[in-house]
Amino acid sequence: MKTTVKTMLACGLGAGLIATAAFAESHSNETNKAVSARHAQMEMIAYHTGILGGIAKGEAEFDADTVRAAAENLQALASLAPATLWTPGTEQGAVEGSRAKAEVFSDMAGFETKLADLANAAGAVAGAADAAAVGAGMGAVGGACKACHETYRGPKN
Amino acid sequence: MKTTVKTMLACGLGAGLIATAAFAESHSNETNKAVSARHAQMEMIAYHTGILGGIAKGEAEFDADTVRAAAENLQALASLAPATLWTPGTEQGAVEGSRAKAEVFSDMAGFETKLADLANAAGAVAGAADAAAVGAGMGAVGGACKACHETYRGPKN
Repeated sequence: MKTTVKTMLACGLGAGLIATAAFAESHSNETNKAVSARHAQMEMIAYHTGILGGIAKGEAEFDADTVRAAAENLQALASLAPATLWTPGTEQGAVEGSRAKAEVFSDMAGFETKLADLANAAGAVAGAADAAAVGAGMGAVGGACKACHETYRGPKN
Repeated sequence: MKTTVKTMLACGLGAGLIATAAFAESHSNETNKAVSARHAQMEMIAYHTGILGGIAKGEAEFDADTVRAAAENLQALASLAPATLWTPGTEQGAVEGSRAKAEVFSDMAGFETKLADLANAAGAVAGAADAAAVGAGMGAVGGACKACHETYRGPKN
C-alpha cells in the first residue's frame, strides 16, 4: 500500500507542478490552440488527481460524494475524444509547448488504449468506501499516468 | 439562420478571447487551483466551440467525424460534476481570477440546469449532416453559453 501511494503521489506531484508554475508559463507562451487545450485537459486531470490524492493521504477528509465527483470527472476527462486535441502537425518540435511524441500520431490506437486505461482506473475509484480504498485505486491511476507519459510524452522543452 | 450564427459567433469569440490573451494572463496570476481548473474547463469548451463555429462559418471543411468528436467532447465538458470545481469560497472577490457570482453557490441547482442546457445543445450537434446543420445547432450552444454567463458570471476583473 505504501509503495502504491508513493507511486501515485510521484505521478500526482509531477502533474501538480505542470498545473502551477510550468503550466502557467507554457500557457502564456503558447500559440497553438490544440496544444493549449490539451494542456488544459492535463491540468484538469492533475487537479482531480490531486483531490483524490489528498484524500488518500489523509490531507483532506474522506467524503463519498467528493470522491465520486472527482473520480467521474477524471474518467470523463480521460475519455474525451483525442481527435480534436492531438491534431496532425502538433508533435513536439513542430509547435511550441508540445511534448507529444511522434508515436501519439503514428500509433493513435495505442495512445487511445492508454487513455482508456486511465479512464477505467479512475472509474474504479468512484465507489471507494474509505480513504484506504481511494489510495489503492489511485495506485492504478498513477500507473496509468506513468505508462502513458513514458511511451507518448517527450522530454521537457 | 444568419442571426443564429451571429449570436453563436459572438459567444464563441468571447470564449476565444478568454482562451488566448486574457486567459493566459489569468492563469499566470492564479493561485486558487479550483478557479484555474474551471478556467481550463472553459478554455476547452471555447476550443471545441471554435472548431464547430469554424465549420459552421465555412472556415474549415465539414467533416462528420470531427463534428461528432468536437460536439461530444463539448457535451462531456459541460457534463463534468461542478462540485469539485465550484467549491465554496471561490466566488468573485474572494479569490483572484474568479468571475463566479455568488448565485452559482446559492443556486447550484439552477447553475447545474444551465450546464445541462449546454450539454444537451452540444449533444444535438454531434450528428449534424452538413455545415448548415452545425450552424443551426451552434445557435442553441451559443444561447446556452450566453444564458449561463448572464446569470452566473460577474463583470471582468
